[in-house]
Amino acid sequence: MNQFFKVKTLEEVLELRREFFALESETIHVKDAYSRVLFRDVAALSDLPGFRRATMDGYALAADATFGASESSPAWLNVQATILMGDVPDFVLEPGMAAKISTGGMLPEGADSVVMVEHTEAVDETSVEIYKSVAPLQNVIDASEDFAQNQVVLPRGRFIRPQEQGLIAGLGFETLEVYQIPKVGIISTGDEIIAINEPPGPGKIRDINSYSLAGFIREAHAIPVSYGIIKDDPAAMKTALEKALEETDMVLISGGSSVGAKDYTLDVLSKIVDTQVLFHGISVSPGKPTILAKSGNKPVWGLPGQVVSAMVVFKIAVVPFLDHIKGLKKQRPRIQVRGRLTRNLSSAQGRRDFVRVLLEEKDGQQQVVPVLGKSGLIRTMIFADGLLEIGEDVEGLEKDTLVDVILL
Amino acid sequence: MNQFFKVKTLEEVLELRREFFALESETIHVKDAYSRVLFRDVAALSDLPGFRRATMDGYALAADATFGASESSPAWLNVQATILMGDVPDFVLEPGMAAKISTGGMLPEGADSVVMVEHTEAVDETSVEIYKSVAPLQNVIDASEDFAQNQVVLPRGRFIRPQEQGLIAGLGFETLEVYQIPKVGIISTGDEIIAINEPPGPGKIRDINSYSLAGFIREAHAIPVSYGIIKDDPAAMKTALEKALEETDMVLISGGSSVGAKDYTLDVLSKIVDTQVLFHGISVSPGKPTILAKSGNKPVWGLPGQVVSAMVVFKIAVVPFLDHIKGLKKQRPRIQVRGRLTRNLSSAQGRRDFVRVLLEEKDGQQQVVPVLGKSGLIRTMIFADGLLEIGEDVEGLEKDTLVDVILL
Repeated sequence: MNQFFKVKTLEEVLELRREFFALESETIHVKDAYSRVLFRDVAALSDLPGFRRATMDGYALAADATFGASESSPAWLNVQATILMGDVPDFVLEPGMAAKISTGGMLPEGADSVVMVEHTEAVDETSVEIYKSVAPLQNVIDASEDFAQNQVVLPRGRFIRPQEQGLIAGLGFETLEVYQIPKVGIISTGDEIIAINEPPGPGKIRDINSYSLAGFIREAHAIPVSYGIIKDDPAAMKTALEKALEETDMVLISGGSSVGAKDYTLDVLSKIVDTQVLFHGISVSPGKPTILAKSGNKPVWGLPGQVVSAMVVFKIAVVPFLDHIKGLKKQRPRIQVRGRLTRNLSSAQGRRDFVRVLLEEKDGQQQVVPVLGKSGLIRTMIFADGLLEIGEDVEGLEKDTLVDVILL
Repeated sequence: MNQFFKVKTLEEVLELRREFFALESETIHVKDAYSRVLFRDVAALSDLPGFRRATMDGYALAADATFGASESSPAWLNVQATILMGDVPDFVLEPGMAAKISTGGMLPEGADSVVMVEHTEAVDETSVEIYKSVAPLQNVIDASEDFAQNQVVLPRGRFIRPQEQGLIAGLGFETLEVYQIPKVGIISTGDEIIAINEPPGPGKIRDINSYSLAGFIREAHAIPVSYGIIKDDPAAMKTALEKALEETDMVLISGGSSVGAKDYTLDVLSKIVDTQVLFHGISVSPGKPTILAKSGNKPVWGLPGQVVSAMVVFKIAVVPFLDHIKGLKKQRPRIQVRGRLTRNLSSAQGRRDFVRVLLEEKDGQQQVVPVLGKSGLIRTMIFADGLLEIGEDVEGLEKDTLVDVILL
């Protein structure tokens, strides 16, 4: 039997991202920007909002006209005009005067603040009493207070959330340059694997990995491309891999990554031009029999055929590489939920374990409950809400320890 | 000026989900199942995996043949056959015999367990020494151990994650019935709002909400449909709303939801057939001027035109309604990150505040840093990683309190 070689820790594996460049860019409409990654800095072409706006319904005025005003001694002002939303005031507010204004309305020249309508009382059509003083710029947003002209508001490499999509539109960009969406090829291998619409027989199992991996690729905002099921035949695998490398930006080969008699992934990789194996074996459980190769600038993964291992490796190792080739710079905060472990967990030293857990609220406390069942059962992933990571240097975790869970 | 009426708390608002039915179903291919919601229970048509499989490379045997085996006193067995992956053993394993097997391979009749190759040594081609005993079913997955025939494995209303997509495929379902994806109409209103490709002038602001709301709708796995910008004109708003109600499953009207002179959303709703307003005003900040109406079975929201308020209300109130009409039953765990507040925060009683915060790791501790700046500034949402909720009964939070943050 062959042996694993170049076994690496998860940290060492993640370091290998540097071996790969990010993808090229493309130009898209801002309405499609959600979940994309900025290829260039976005700067404000002009001030935002661009004029002094009211943030309350009330009266626009010069703050000094209200100084000393109180319930018992209100300030008394003439109402010079009413400004409706969208109006451009064509007058200068005179000293001692106020203009009625709505939230979002534009302040006239001469006004520096807004007094809330709740702190006023209209005496008649043309005059108002003010019961509370305001400071300059109170209840207004100044012309460049959100963003000033020429300021870089979003850096290259930034993930575009809904609020960034709104801001880019608000800055007047109808189109923008973003990194391309990675296409990820999936090749399922194994003589025992049959298509999901084939009648199953003894010794055969349906192709789960093509579908779960496609789901994980979608979840990571990338595009799965399936290359079907290939038998354990190096020539057929080589043909499929070459096609996938031609058409996609990253390839996942499910199965054939271990050291058994029919594990041909390493063999096949050695026959592809301009391709080198970066590691074989990763010191995590489940998921040890994993291969990463570099073919040109494209990562090629040999993933365990075992369904749970394939999922865990995708989540903890493949996703960071996908983010990297997508151009993502600022990592979003890793989504973890903290809770209290409900029982002791043992773990082998020198290996990082990912234990499937479910989250249960009990007496207002988050409980982290390990999912029982053999590691190879897909049911453990179905019942799980997340993965609990146990480090290489830890022999196990005691009941009641506070732990962080990576959500699934 | 009009007044808010039927002001509700967030809990009261969320209770109103019951007023609405979930959408109809459609049949899709399992490859497209990720992020959909199951319309029917999924049951296993047969056992999974369906036969007894090895989870390790080694030798399949009857466990009792290994009892008492140790390094110093190994058990000695004849090797009856070698089973390759995908093979269907056409023999019965005889007592005292073993069959060489790979991970995933099918055990022959007569074998109930697998001894790992690491605990064996091949003596010659036909015999092997076993250094460790195994228990029945050790290192195997039994025929129905993942799921048994006719067992309901996934209930109606379940969100399909990548692992559920894989399982459904593994059970042999090429197609499945899921709830339709909600289409959500967006109508942007306001005389001050201009299209993003129009030259901005004083008093005008570009249409941010159509784009940020579209992003939030995508993030919630629904489909945004934009109906453009409508001036503050009840007749035009009514026409746009009727069209949106015709074509979509939920409508968001951005702007016109407050109590100002040009806030026509309530007026317009009163003129649409079979439509009743469920509330006007929600006791949260930002976001008070919010309206929910029921038109037939469709929720119609009047959202604040103020960009930050619109985003917060979408996230905390609209998303749960979207999940509801999508048919989602088991809520996934709410994604919250716990951290330590870096400064005192005040809050008005009787109102639920959503403070924008950023997350910063410091000395291995998660810090929750409130984002400074006026509530109306979009920059506060851009700099924020999440929202910190401060309840109605709380006057404020002290520095160093442990708090949970809803991720943005």
